[in-house]
Amino acid sequence: MKALSKAINAVRLNNNLQNLAQIGKIGSTGVSRLAHSPEDKQAVLHVKKHMDTIGLQTKIDHFGNLIGRMDGVANDAPALVIGSHIDSQPYGGKYDGALGVIGALEVLESIHEQGITPDIPIIVIAFADEEGSRFNKGLFGVRGILDKLEEGELERQDKTGMTRRQALIEFGCDPSKFEECLIDTSKIVAFLELHIEQGPVLEAKEEPIGIVTGISGPLWMTVEMEGLAGHAGSVPMAMRQDALVGAAKVIVKLNELAQEVNGAPTVSTVGSLQVFPDSRNIIPEKVTFTVDLRDIDESRRDKIEQAFRQDLDNIAAEHGLTYTIHEDTRNGPRFCNENIMQIMREESAEMGLTPPELMSGPFHDSLEMSYVCDYGMIFVRSKDGISHNPKEYSSPEDIALGTELLYKTVCRIACQK
Amino acid sequence: MKALSKAINAVRLNNNLQNLAQIGKIGSTGVSRLAHSPEDKQAVLHVKKHMDTIGLQTKIDHFGNLIGRMDGVANDAPALVIGSHIDSQPYGGKYDGALGVIGALEVLESIHEQGITPDIPIIVIAFADEEGSRFNKGLFGVRGILDKLEEGELERQDKTGMTRRQALIEFGCDPSKFEECLIDTSKIVAFLELHIEQGPVLEAKEEPIGIVTGISGPLWMTVEMEGLAGHAGSVPMAMRQDALVGAAKVIVKLNELAQEVNGAPTVSTVGSLQVFPDSRNIIPEKVTFTVDLRDIDESRRDKIEQAFRQDLDNIAAEHGLTYTIHEDTRNGPRFCNENIMQIMREESAEMGLTPPELMSGPFHDSLEMSYVCDYGMIFVRSKDGISHNPKEYSSPEDIALGTELLYKTVCRIACQK
Repeated sequence: MKALSKAINAVRLNNNLQNLAQIGKIGSTGVSRLAHSPEDKQAVLHVKKHMDTIGLQTKIDHFGNLIGRMDGVANDAPALVIGSHIDSQPYGGKYDGALGVIGALEVLESIHEQGITPDIPIIVIAFADEEGSRFNKGLFGVRGILDKLEEGELERQDKTGMTRRQALIEFGCDPSKFEECLIDTSKIVAFLELHIEQGPVLEAKEEPIGIVTGISGPLWMTVEMEGLAGHAGSVPMAMRQDALVGAAKVIVKLNELAQEVNGAPTVSTVGSLQVFPDSRNIIPEKVTFTVDLRDIDESRRDKIEQAFRQDLDNIAAEHGLTYTIHEDTRNGPRFCNENIMQIMREESAEMGLTPPELMSGPFHDSLEMSYVCDYGMIFVRSKDGISHNPKEYSSPEDIALGTELLYKTVCRIACQK
Repeated sequence: MKALSKAINAVRLNNNLQNLAQIGKIGSTGVSRLAHSPEDKQAVLHVKKHMDTIGLQTKIDHFGNLIGRMDGVANDAPALVIGSHIDSQPYGGKYDGALGVIGALEVLESIHEQGITPDIPIIVIAFADEEGSRFNKGLFGVRGILDKLEEGELERQDKTGMTRRQALIEFGCDPSKFEECLIDTSKIVAFLELHIEQGPVLEAKEEPIGIVTGISGPLWMTVEMEGLAGHAGSVPMAMRQDALVGAAKVIVKLNELAQEVNGAPTVSTVGSLQVFPDSRNIIPEKVTFTVDLRDIDESRRDKIEQAFRQDLDNIAAEHGLTYTIHEDTRNGPRFCNENIMQIMREESAEMGLTPPELMSGPFHDSLEMSYVCDYGMIFVRSKDGISHNPKEYSSPEDIALGTELLYKTVCRIACQK
């Protein structure tokens, strides 16, 4: 028997998702809404309008977060927070993040339509800059309200040289008012996030949705290797200090390191790389590249990191290069709350589903929320496991099921009466 | 006994070189004058003014070449052409190219001062876009006047998306008038070029100048490798089609191939590389990089090229990548004229010098001129062999000696009476 969604309005949900995808649309299916950009602002205003029509109390805070609140009967009680983000990768898809915000609004719109007043307040947040691709550091909005921004974060630059501070101001934020936007974490009962899987597991298991058990924390570093420029035609090979040859060897090595333990879910990626001076007949003087290393087993990740640092050191010495490593982000794995997972199991069973339980390789806003409250996540199957790409796709049927389970979980936690 | 320059004015020569280096100056010693850029235009107008003060007939043609002519007694006779270029690498030095133009003007200014009228006309050319870094294809101006531009060349784009055509028009050129700027090659008796060595040979031999025996022709290719993007956190290593890992392996391999024959002067370089979408948590979908392969032995270069293509094919298959190879430039080695070299040997001996004779790894405007007339080149020692970098340096003494030899060679060919 095929599971069907009942409480929520699947057609409206899909329309809302497709409408949001018009903002920053690229190609026929893609989305580009870089954090704090004009497209991001347009999307935030679009979703805010939607929140207003459901009767939520809305505000855009000075981190760029969009927040909508539905009052509860016990309106001073800690709130249930749900949400995700609506910024995207530069060449991204329309489901990553957006599903968690539009899905949360569908849940509240359904509750609103059904004339239910929740026991406790429910807050929907579209967090600013989850992706981190513009300023090479993500989870900005959620870290903002949790007072976890780091020294110098506002001075990070995007590829055009614009600082985060400038970008925020252009977005309409006032960085001098961050303090008044901090959230009182004693007033949060739990955080729930609905998200596409962005990987191939659910598809391989032929299951529409999954219950997340935890998030593999990422280690993000930026490596710069420096040698000596020279004319590509005249410097003999033996005399070269070619930063790109060195970097290439490091990239190959990192790729091997992540595959050393057979069957382990370790992943390593060099996603961004710049060559200086980047001219075809000049030996590269400097190469900067990012490293992304993740594992659900933090001690294994630590070992790989140590091996990587040793290999980098050896390769640099071999090629006469100097190097620096800058650590951008270091998170350990964070596990979901067992009680919330149990609610999801029970409600899934009522829907006729037995969702697989799986770790998340990608991190999410939940990762930061996990430090201040219990959290739970629901995954929706991704076609071919593709994400961060215009080819990203989840079917309206799967999305409806994931949102239905979110609705049921929200009701169990916030609308028991 | 230390050799001294006598006929030319070494102080004026050095001043002229340093003055030109103020245009597009970067840092304390570097120069950035990209082809057809406002800095390039400013430099061309600056040198044109110099030509005018020596009494040359000057013009800037529609390829962007600056041409100055000194009439000869037999003014219809084929002319001696001398010169080089004044465009630079994006992060270049002040001697590469500039020496050949400023040195040639010093020769003509000395001839002019000494009241000599040459037997035949002497033409100085500052060729446009020798470097090729802006549009990834060099020797533009010299190929222009020789009617050797290729289909679609004007549509090549720089990193900002500007086409060569647009850049030429902004420079003040009219691409519809190329035809009237072609040179009559039957009216050229020979081409001479003075240039810095850009390599470490003369310094190792402790010699200020050298006589060039020929130029190793470059093979320039652009390779694009394409895989599949995906989230850096969720796609298992075994399922990835990471274009950057593939490209890194190809870069390492190419570096090894150029070193396979012990002691051979083969050089290979990947100088420019771009990653798409270039985001730290996305598996690279596409990587584009340049290949520069040079050898004085063309058949050895052919063998390395074949091995490279095979390795590229294997690595692409291993990583599930597709690829394309675009051939941008393919030149064989071109040897200097023995008679001109003999004149240089004799005149050097008179100066008390015995210059080493050496091949040029870098190509020069001479490479293209070699197809239409005899040519000769003089090299000036480069400190630490460094070029295409602000650290590029040749001493005023060495420069004066090279220019003196150019003066003597010009006089032997064009002012015999």
